Amino acid sequence: AALGARKMEDHGRFLALLASTLLVGFVSVILSLVWVFHYREGLSWDGDLGEFNWHPVLIITGFVFIQGIAIIVYRLPWTWKCSKLLMKFIHAGLNTIAMILAIVSMVAVFDYHNAKNTPNMYSLHSWIGLTALIFYSLQLVLGFAVFLLPFAPVHLRAVLMPIHVYSGLTIFATVIATALMGITEKLVFSLRNPAYSSSPPEATLVNCLGLLLVVFGSLILWMASRPHWKRPLEENTKVLRPIGGTPEGTEVESTMTSSSNADKSDLRINTEAARKQNLKFDEAGQRSTM
Amino acid sequence: AALGARKMEDHGRFLALLASTLLVGFVSVILSLVWVFHYREGLSWDGDLGEFNWHPVLIITGFVFIQGIAIIVYRLPWTWKCSKLLMKFIHAGLNTIAMILAIVSMVAVFDYHNAKNTPNMYSLHSWIGLTALIFYSLQLVLGFAVFLLPFAPVHLRAVLMPIHVYSGLTIFATVIATALMGITEKLVFSLRNPAYSSSPPEATLVNCLGLLLVVFGSLILWMASRPHWKRPLEENTKVLRPIGGTPEGTEVESTMTSSSNADKSDLRINTEAARKQNLKFDEAGQRSTM
Repeated sequence: AALGARKMEDHGRFLALLASTLLVGFVSVILSLVWVFHYREGLSWDGDLGEFNWHPVLIITGFVFIQGIAIIVYRLPWTWKCSKLLMKFIHAGLNTIAMILAIVSMVAVFDYHNAKNTPNMYSLHSWIGLTALIFYSLQLVLGFAVFLLPFAPVHLRAVLMPIHVYSGLTIFATVIATALMGITEKLVFSLRNPAYSSSPPEATLVNCLGLLLVVFGSLILWMASRPHWKRPLEENTKVLRPIGGTPEGTEVESTMTSSSNADKSDLRINTEAARKQNLKFDEAGQRSTM
Repeated sequence: AALGARKMEDHGRFLALLASTLLVGFVSVILSLVWVFHYREGLSWDGDLGEFNWHPVLIITGFVFIQGIAIIVYRLPWTWKCSKLLMKFIHAGLNTIAMILAIVSMVAVFDYHNAKNTPNMYSLHSWIGLTALIFYSLQLVLGFAVFLLPFAPVHLRAVLMPIHVYSGLTIFATVIATALMGITEKLVFSLRNPAYSSSPPEATLVNCLGLLLVVFGSLILWMASRPHWKRPLEENTKVLRPIGGTPEGTEVESTMTSSSNADKSDLRINTEAARKQNLKFDEAGQRSTM
């Protein structure tokens, strides 16, 4: 009973954190719109500043907010009764939407720069941002090929899953860092009279937006990296857990020790042990861990 | 034998990554010195630009490079024969050095701003940077009180360790993001004729420095988050592992399920099981995991 109460408490804590994260992300999107419509030239697609303004709005909506949700979508307890395949499609779908919005937002900047004869790709912001987009696209294509299409062998999935998780979280953190650089650039360039250094209301608003992006990223990383908030094992593989292991411990173990397990299973072809080992691998290949 | 060969291969992979990380960190420090001495006003402490220049040099040396090494210091295989207490002192010591260098580097900026009558603390870079320094100092004080001083109960250590690890990695990532904002600001402000947008050699050099900081951070996060590269269990607690668990799986389990284990151990006071449980906790409280 005490254990059950603790589980409920933990469930409540997850929901509270999720609500806070959604609120912070939502307020960030609103602040980007306030910035663009109240302090800047609004949105348009005519080679002028209104076109540039799509860049921060789409990056914060797509590359930060939607990517963040895509990362934690397996953690939502009410999705645990849905099939894993459906959840993979939602994960991949949200990431695809985020990628498209990121690409459109970059086209807006290139278009604006070209219309104004401003050079492209000279700043650290642009270097790291384009690199992040390329890695993000590679991650999406590779993730689709390995984890969604049915062709990849389970051993390959087990080896690649920790790399997929690490790359995903590192790219996400890099995208937020790049957004902070972009905010810095834009405020320095566009606030002239009064200057950024005299802290006009626009500077305070956009600095707060930057802080919220850091808070949003930190919350997503916390939720994604708590092993006890992971989607539980499927019923058919639950019985295969080693004695004495808890779901959390075993899942991490089965993914993390995959290379040494591969050695052992080579010796056990066509045995019951090998069948179980492969099922364990199958589970490992499907599960994220860090 | 195949398992042994794989372990050696894995050991070699760790050393290769470590060497790359040290190289990237070392080159970053060198590039910050080239930036400051070849393209800027060198180093001095006179309220002029030479004093400001301590800021990037000390941040990259202390808050990025030394903090990064402090994070992975438990991962170095040749330290596994040293006592855990010694390693904790080295971890805390490196972080203290990093904190002092970060504080001095911020004093340099405030001093320079005050001498030039430039406002302080107006930029997003300054807001996030100061916040990161405050959290870093809190983390250091709390880590010292809980994990180094002998007073904290093992249950508290077990509960706080995952938070300590998460905070440490998140602060580290935030520090790198702040450094990238700082680089952006400085290049936009100081490159006037030729401007940043015309990509003079200084811009290219410092953009490369920014890229290297991202690579350095990514390598540190990868090494810190691989469970099979963690310091092995101490000999005296090894026998207490549950049947069927591997070192990696069990360690993560023992830390992560600490709150539910706490319930159970309350019922077992003065029993052999309780003694083992407490030893397991002791281990859990000492070990980092994410």
